[in-house]
Amino acid sequence: MNGSDWSRDPVVLDAMRRAAELGQRVLGSTSPNPAVGCVVLDRHGHVAGTGATRPAGREHAEALALREAGEAAVGGTAVVTLEPCAHTGRTGACAVALREAGVARVAYAVADPNPAASGGAALLREAGVDVVGGIDEQEVATGALRPWLHATRTGLPHVTWKYAASLDGRSAASDGTSQWISSEPSRAEVHRIRAHRDAVLVGTGTVLADDPRLTARDERGAPLPEQPLRVVVGDRDLPESAKVFDDSAPTIRLAGGDPDRVLRSLAERGVTAVLLEGGPTLAGAFLEAGRIDLVEAFVAPALLGSGSAALGDAGVASISQAWRFHFERVRMCGRDVWISAVPSEG
Amino acid sequence: MNGSDWSRDPVVLDAMRRAAELGQRVLGSTSPNPAVGCVVLDRHGHVAGTGATRPAGREHAEALALREAGEAAVGGTAVVTLEPCAHTGRTGACAVALREAGVARVAYAVADPNPAASGGAALLREAGVDVVGGIDEQEVATGALRPWLHATRTGLPHVTWKYAASLDGRSAASDGTSQWISSEPSRAEVHRIRAHRDAVLVGTGTVLADDPRLTARDERGAPLPEQPLRVVVGDRDLPESAKVFDDSAPTIRLAGGDPDRVLRSLAERGVTAVLLEGGPTLAGAFLEAGRIDLVEAFVAPALLGSGSAALGDAGVASISQAWRFHFERVRMCGRDVWISAVPSEG
Ligand SMILES: NC(=O)c1ccc[n+]([C@@H]2O[C@H](COP(=O)([O-])OP(=O)(O)OC[C@H]3O[C@@H](n4cnc5c(N)ncnc54)[C@H](OP(=O)(O)O)[C@@H]3O)[C@@H](O)[C@H]2O)c1
Ligand SMILES: NC(=O)c1ccc[n+]([C@@H]2O[C@H](COP(=O)([O-])OP(=O)(O)OC[C@H]3O[C@@H](n4cnc5c(N)ncnc54)[C@H](OP(=O)(O)O)[C@@H]3O)[C@@H](O)[C@H]2O)c1
Repeated sequence: MNGSDWSRDPVVLDAMRRAAELGQRVLGSTSPNPAVGCVVLDRHGHVAGTGATRPAGREHAEALALREAGEAAVGGTAVVTLEPCAHTGRTGACAVALREAGVARVAYAVADPNPAASGGAALLREAGVDVVGGIDEQEVATGALRPWLHATRTGLPHVTWKYAASLDGRSAASDGTSQWISSEPSRAEVHRIRAHRDAVLVGTGTVLADDPRLTARDERGAPLPEQPLRVVVGDRDLPESAKVFDDSAPTIRLAGGDPDRVLRSLAERGVTAVLLEGGPTLAGAFLEAGRIDLVEAFVAPALLGSGSAALGDAGVASISQAWRFHFERVRMCGRDVWISAVPSEG
Repeated sequence: MNGSDWSRDPVVLDAMRRAAELGQRVLGSTSPNPAVGCVVLDRHGHVAGTGATRPAGREHAEALALREAGEAAVGGTAVVTLEPCAHTGRTGACAVALREAGVARVAYAVADPNPAASGGAALLREAGVDVVGGIDEQEVATGALRPWLHATRTGLPHVTWKYAASLDGRSAASDGTSQWISSEPSRAEVHRIRAHRDAVLVGTGTVLADDPRLTARDERGAPLPEQPLRVVVGDRDLPESAKVFDDSAPTIRLAGGDPDRVLRSLAERGVTAVLLEGGPTLAGAFLEAGRIDLVEAFVAPALLGSGSAALGDAGVASISQAWRFHFERVRMCGRDVWISAVPSEG
């Protein structure tokens, strides 16, 4: 790992993929901090330490990886998904920790857009550390860091709208039945997506119609260690016995439901990533407000021809006003197609 | 190419793929005959002749390939997508022609389900020809031979329902505008799909709303050599000036629109493959009658939230009555997702 091309060394690229995975694993438990992953390689290129952001107020990824590496970090390489922070918040600045640990090289994926924290790369370079940014940038920026990057840029949480529907776009039959449109593997993915968010959002309509629990559970129905905040918006009275009010996770109610007001109120609570699981009404309102940042659609191989549309009115009168997206990823999930879509630019 | 495994020789498998392509190319021009492809290899395994079914009453694929091969067929191998026919119709029996040409081996993909024509394999074996069936059977049976196999089994034409819709399943905005939901590559595929069918079917509603021409055209708008019969079903009066009545292809009107009656009437005209391009009403009626055999859905990366649903009422009241399909192929087509689905068994 010498010369100017050390950052393209397969060992470094492998370490970045591993760092990205580590970040992905803690997504949903770190807000308002980013879900960062870090791998420290010793001077021979062997993995000496790994880490991922702990919940707010606790260690950052770099600190954990350096602690595990100990003396092996000296002359080694730190590979981290986000530019190491330069500011001293509740924890020490990571750039300083890396310098003090004696690493010779730092590779990161995404530059820190946060003015208060950026400058880590410059600080390290001044100390004589060889720093390269932009490794696997696109993949990391649309992976575990996406919600945090969005929240840093806009001041509002990142919103994922998840829905399951038939190929003809219906999420329930005309008698209201909907279980199960999508297959078991898709439902398992939904639980994983939930676990990676800080909050799950529904309207009163979904609570009244489906009485969902809205917790993240494993294949056997046991709750996962991290549970998102459950948020119900809308004014109607709900029965106290509704499952969303059980003690398996915290729940809040917000009156009204203006998307921007809801999101600001969640941002104040430190929420960075929201999963919108409401029905067609709430999804339409968020889309119309331009507040859907990612769509996770599970499309089942069934045709209904009647029943509830997956998406309600979103202010579109003519085809030229259609909300245009870009299909980021399309793959099978059991017998369903799982489509991830992001808004088109402009 | 000796011994019992000659039929798994890459040369034979390559020839079968080529034969399948040849069949695919003539699909839409051969009804009521199957779109068969044939490749004749000489005794050294070199391609000596190729052929694909000509329009009804003209040569079958084998006859063309044998004529091209001439003396080179002696001791060679005929590779053909369908078991060579044994009956003498308007053309001579292909099995007899192969025997007389002196081929030593015959490999075919799909056995002939037609009692009047089957027995070709047996006839050839009796004459000492080494015959192996079932090569690439699944692929060929779901390719160029699919409509004909379906028609032979059921007595009715094979029906493909093609539609374009937004991700939320809408094929027009609330003001009726729909051009263009899908992208240019998807529209080009639709023209290719049309060219491979014997008939294109719409309801009066589509003619009145969209005034489509319903011809198969190339990328520059020029008509393709083969044009499907245009069929309009329903009772309403239509303007004589409707484009579907222009002279670019033949057009018939059928009163009423009961799916089975429509299909029987088309079968009597020698139609084997129908493309249903009607609106949601006709698609719902055909689905409810169990007469949709293949769905070609072009799903655009757009959300509408209102407007016309791609599929109208199909008799489904509860989720347990959903029409269940199986996603046979899912791929990108330009910026759209192109999903091919076939009914689930049972
Ligand atoms: N397939 C799926 O993935 C999926 C997921 C969830 C639900 N569903 C289905 O969706 C149906 C329920 O539909 P729904 O549309 O009534 O549920 P919803 O969208 O969850 O709830 C609608 C309610 O949300 C409140 N609300 C809050 N903010 C709003 C805003 N900005 N604009 C409009 N309303 C706002 C209103 O309640 P108030 O009137 O109380 O103010 C409104 O009536 C059920 O049949 C359920 O099965 C399907
Ligand atoms: N996105 C796409 O791929 C696509 C394709 C085609 C059309 N469209 C859209 O679909 C809309 C037109 O919808 P549509 O549903 O009115 O069109 P349609 O399904 O083509 O026509 C409906 C008419 O077909 C007749 N019909 C014949 N047999 C029938 C049966 N068994 N059951 C019911 N009706 C039968 C009836 O006409 P009579 O009343 O005259 O008897 C009926 O009103 C337009 O907005 C068009 O843009 C979209």
